Amino acid sequence: MRQLSSVLRANCCSSFRKPFLRAPPGRVYPTQSFATTPAHRRFQLPRQKREAAMAHDMTTLKGKPFDRASLESLMRRRMFYTPAFEIYGGVSGLYDYGPSGCALTNNIIDVWRKHFVLKENMLEVDCTMLTPYDVLKTSGHVDKFADWMCKDPKTGEIFRADHLVEEVLESRLKGDKEARGQKVDVDEEDPKKKKKKVKSITAVKLEDAVAQEYEEVLAKIDNYNGEELGLLMKKYDIRNPANNSELLPPVSFNLMFQTAIGPSGHIPGYLRPETAQGQFLNFQKLLDFNQQQMPFASASIGKSFRNEISPRSGLLRVREFLMAEIEHFVDPEGGKKHPHFDEVKDVELELLNREVQLAGKTHAETTKIGEAVKIGLVDNETLGYFLARIQLFLLKIGVDPKKIRFRQHMANEMAHYATDCWDAELLTSYGWIECVGCADRSAYDLTVHMKRTGAPLVVREPRKEPLKVEEWQCDIDKKKFGPKFKKDGKAVEAAIEALSQDMREKLSLDLASEGKITIDVPAVGDGKVEVPKELISIEKRTRVENVREYTPNVIEPSFGIGRIVYALCEHTYWTREQDEARGVLSFPPTVAPTKVLIVPLSSHADFKPFVRKLNNKLQDIGISSRVDDSGASIGKRYSRNDELGTPLGITIDFQSVKDDSFTLRDRDSTQQVRSSLDEICKAISNLVNGTEQWSDVAQRLPKFEGQEVD
Amino acid sequence: MRQLSSVLRANCCSSFRKPFLRAPPGRVYPTQSFATTPAHRRFQLPRQKREAAMAHDMTTLKGKPFDRASLESLMRRRMFYTPAFEIYGGVSGLYDYGPSGCALTNNIIDVWRKHFVLKENMLEVDCTMLTPYDVLKTSGHVDKFADWMCKDPKTGEIFRADHLVEEVLESRLKGDKEARGQKVDVDEEDPKKKKKKVKSITAVKLEDAVAQEYEEVLAKIDNYNGEELGLLMKKYDIRNPANNSELLPPVSFNLMFQTAIGPSGHIPGYLRPETAQGQFLNFQKLLDFNQQQMPFASASIGKSFRNEISPRSGLLRVREFLMAEIEHFVDPEGGKKHPHFDEVKDVELELLNREVQLAGKTHAETTKIGEAVKIGLVDNETLGYFLARIQLFLLKIGVDPKKIRFRQHMANEMAHYATDCWDAELLTSYGWIECVGCADRSAYDLTVHMKRTGAPLVVREPRKEPLKVEEWQCDIDKKKFGPKFKKDGKAVEAAIEALSQDMREKLSLDLASEGKITIDVPAVGDGKVEVPKELISIEKRTRVENVREYTPNVIEPSFGIGRIVYALCEHTYWTREQDEARGVLSFPPTVAPTKVLIVPLSSHADFKPFVRKLNNKLQDIGISSRVDDSGASIGKRYSRNDELGTPLGITIDFQSVKDDSFTLRDRDSTQQVRSSLDEICKAISNLVNGTEQWSDVAQRLPKFEGQEVD
Repeated sequence: MRQLSSVLRANCCSSFRKPFLRAPPGRVYPTQSFATTPAHRRFQLPRQKREAAMAHDMTTLKGKPFDRASLESLMRRRMFYTPAFEIYGGVSGLYDYGPSGCALTNNIIDVWRKHFVLKENMLEVDCTMLTPYDVLKTSGHVDKFADWMCKDPKTGEIFRADHLVEEVLESRLKGDKEARGQKVDVDEEDPKKKKKKVKSITAVKLEDAVAQEYEEVLAKIDNYNGEELGLLMKKYDIRNPANNSELLPPVSFNLMFQTAIGPSGHIPGYLRPETAQGQFLNFQKLLDFNQQQMPFASASIGKSFRNEISPRSGLLRVREFLMAEIEHFVDPEGGKKHPHFDEVKDVELELLNREVQLAGKTHAETTKIGEAVKIGLVDNETLGYFLARIQLFLLKIGVDPKKIRFRQHMANEMAHYATDCWDAELLTSYGWIECVGCADRSAYDLTVHMKRTGAPLVVREPRKEPLKVEEWQCDIDKKKFGPKFKKDGKAVEAAIEALSQDMREKLSLDLASEGKITIDVPAVGDGKVEVPKELISIEKRTRVENVREYTPNVIEPSFGIGRIVYALCEHTYWTREQDEARGVLSFPPTVAPTKVLIVPLSSHADFKPFVRKLNNKLQDIGISSRVDDSGASIGKRYSRNDELGTPLGITIDFQSVKDDSFTLRDRDSTQQVRSSLDEICKAISNLVNGTEQWSDVAQRLPKFEGQEVD
Repeated sequence: MRQLSSVLRANCCSSFRKPFLRAPPGRVYPTQSFATTPAHRRFQLPRQKREAAMAHDMTTLKGKPFDRASLESLMRRRMFYTPAFEIYGGVSGLYDYGPSGCALTNNIIDVWRKHFVLKENMLEVDCTMLTPYDVLKTSGHVDKFADWMCKDPKTGEIFRADHLVEEVLESRLKGDKEARGQKVDVDEEDPKKKKKKVKSITAVKLEDAVAQEYEEVLAKIDNYNGEELGLLMKKYDIRNPANNSELLPPVSFNLMFQTAIGPSGHIPGYLRPETAQGQFLNFQKLLDFNQQQMPFASASIGKSFRNEISPRSGLLRVREFLMAEIEHFVDPEGGKKHPHFDEVKDVELELLNREVQLAGKTHAETTKIGEAVKIGLVDNETLGYFLARIQLFLLKIGVDPKKIRFRQHMANEMAHYATDCWDAELLTSYGWIECVGCADRSAYDLTVHMKRTGAPLVVREPRKEPLKVEEWQCDIDKKKFGPKFKKDGKAVEAAIEALSQDMREKLSLDLASEGKITIDVPAVGDGKVEVPKELISIEKRTRVENVREYTPNVIEPSFGIGRIVYALCEHTYWTREQDEARGVLSFPPTVAPTKVLIVPLSSHADFKPFVRKLNNKLQDIGISSRVDDSGASIGKRYSRNDELGTPLGITIDFQSVKDDSFTLRDRDSTQQVRSSLDEICKAISNLVNGTEQWSDVAQRLPKFEGQEVD
């Protein structure tokens, strides 16, 4: 894969367009319309959004220009992450999290669990990643979770077709601009690559009409299917930029990793591309566990896998990633109210709605969620409740409130069955990145699995008033049914069960005239099944319904934890005024990888028992600390821990030996206070639990200005 | 797979023999001796151990006979686990954890992290599960992580060869016993299967000599390789028990799940069979992160995968499982002392040593770990330290102290390079199950990866006194070296670097006489590389060494979390005297899935605000609670939560409405106290954090005996 990156990396700004979290085509577009809605489209944000996201003017917390290269260097140096298998040459799209990144992620997950699972009594499950073929066939992933790729027959190099077309046309347009003496925009690019990129642009003037055509193609690049992309490549003579060879026509490439389960190889399986399916399959048992009470939510935290054609953009597009997904099951009747909606109705969100986007704008409007639901902008209370709760979660872990917005999906981005869908996007130097998707998916998922398996993925509740319904009923002779259809019996039965009233009426006539009916059962044989009149009768009767049966709708907030972790690092990163090279990561204490740095003034033996005592005391109260007793200056030691995002530091000096007092330093202000061990530990505990801010502590405890430690 | 289970499940008692956690053959036996040490042997516990493990007399906490079927029914009913993809027919060896099992596992992981990672400042990493071929080739998994399987050519059924031979011979021996009118032992079998099994035994008397031969084969069943198993099958006419067809000869089946990474399919990959490799590969970066300080440990918690031929024994042998592994890196010189060994030296362990096992006994001896290290029974302090810490962890989460032992590996179970190895085994109805492995693996893992990649996976530390060494040195002409060997240069260089002094002396003579040397470089071409004298010189010189360079040894505690979870459920399960059907899981509050059940006396509207207030208050202090306001009797509601292992219950009654007081119930004793909201919450918090026991609370707060709720 690596040989691709130099070509494709040029187009960094497009990397944020493919939602990371979801959207296998089968789930977003109905099967029947898939032919006309190419696989890529669902992954794409509208063109204008990409333009707006160029990161010319990204600034840090302190208002200084943001420099991605410095942050990435810091993150690797301090082992937030590292390319996996690096000593073996690495594999693109696979990263390991080191101690800092792993602890940060664990702490974020911990907050997530408290904020969502504990707060709502969600039913957390842990389902297997290995998933058999049938499940993902039903969900639509086997057929349609794919991108278009094309191959260089000479070198074997593989390109993602839409990316390549975009790449080449953009490069030609830039060459045209240069030839016309206009300024060429390279700001979105990694500074390291700037030089190289400018070099690779050949200044060739294009015909005005051709340039116009290129612009139009680029505006619609997300809408082409494989065949159309192939035609574009022919028409514009788009070749392998490295060696100018012609490429083979685009073919579909499924993004799931395949394997075989068991020794016979007879059970084809995949690594799950999302955690949602396991939750749907267990719906019935979860409802039982919840004592049949609706609404309720399940949740799952775990790894998912996507075999990206050309992974890039660091941690934003990877082949193995951590997701946290919620499936909130709700009665479709009664307006999908949420019992706790009142608690969040005044939360203000930046909403970028569908109409604004259609008008080619990217202006998000500050709206109270209560108002947004009231005017119908957000479809229902439950969806609105989760949008607000998502924002509260993001703020809790330290995301910059000025860099969050909620973007509504366009009608053509959304599945036909979806009611409404919003993405929480975080602004990064790669543009606005989808980090959380939140969709009302109606009854789609439960319905397809129920149809395929016959398992009753439904809620049954007693009616207060019995319901009388006049209807066509199918009666099956079960005794004959089993022997005739054998293992397919259940599927045939389910298909009959699912017949509409109109169809039943029509079939009753067939039965009378032909002595048999023919029905569609996709899972059986050629999909057509004949049922003779000995096995079935169809009659119009009045049914009294005492029990209401319905398929719940599902509201699905889906979090890409790796993306959130990366965006959080960008949001909290800044450099100290006095020295540009000294980076700081201002994580809130709750999520910081390590909470406290313990620094003895020197390696003097007198300090050792105090180091030990402090360390033990902090361990006892469950607070992670690290000791730095290296020979480096105190300033240098604190500086290292600023880069690790450690919010607090304790210095042990000769005063400590005398009177058992210690200084506590705040990472962001570099202010220090001095007090007894107990007071210092209490302050730390409060800061980590969020019950106090540094300003409270600084006011409460005596200030200390003895040492230079910033 | 499912058709196998009826045959193979019969042999439940053998299921605990294959250590779950580790032991790819390449790591346990040296490559060269593998031909004579069959793949199975490393997985096996000695025969006498299996015999001893028969679970005739398993008792619950309360001394009553343990009934596995009831516990398993409870665990499924209360959704601790459930077969994955059940509505699609399921896939054997894959299980989902439901809300109870998932919360229990998360809580155990939380304790694990505090007990190990936080306490020792371990460097936790999260490495990818997708692993490229090269890494697992080097580690030995590609060639040797395999079992022997044989196929029925007619039906396609697949059997694990050693299990089948064992199965059939045991069954014939039982038939012989029956024919001789002796009592047939079926106690180790699942009660449900008893009848079936006894039935399937055909009472046929064997010749005395044949019976004797069978016994001998069974005693050595763990030692046969594929060819030998094939000969046994021919000799004893062992066929498919279901249809009596002859089977094909055993072939090796690699237990790793294979996949392809990237669209070209050129990067073959596997799902990791253990989490250890990622930690080894990152050694250099972790040492840097730790500021070059030794010793230190890394840790990792995550899923691993093994494509078992015939998974069985429920949660004990699965295809996807959670591991927690520690790699503690230590200087091999200086006796592998541990700085905190004194803290644990008086911890008493049940040690089943190698000599006792060799003598055919299974008697474990209670020994203080300090003593065990002193007399050399446990090889070194660091290994001993971890054995003690493992036991303390197991006790903390609620494992029955009478059902833990540490079994030393026999010499032939251990790798040639390993110094010592002990398994923490927990007694269950399946026998003694290996739940934690703890091995001193010497420098093996770092060495093989260093040899293969040339990456310096070593520690360099300044010597206090420079060391003078007289030695043969190889000087390479790097300018010519690169152009000649190209990409192989590094590997060739590393191979030269690794030459022994004797070999260098010999090669210096070759160089003089033949003008070239030939060395072994397994990773290059046919494994032999010629280096002409233009590129290398070999001379005897005195070297002054200011820096000491060494490959650390690694002590590896490796936890099978799923096995621990299952054993913990067996250990904490009992039934209330008054009604055998009422199961209780006595989890300690720290690990219990839910801490508090909130029970309003009835659905009376007056109770609702109190339910809400209590629930919110508990959420604020981070304690998971569930409300049961169903119409069921209080006793029934408590009974349900006994099965979930919920340690505490709060009842809201009319008294609560009057004076804001509540009753708190202890699951195990069914005692109740009554007090104010604040007092009750404080008591709950103390019980969950482990700072108070129920007996303390019962003494402190007024007893309440108003309702029948047990």
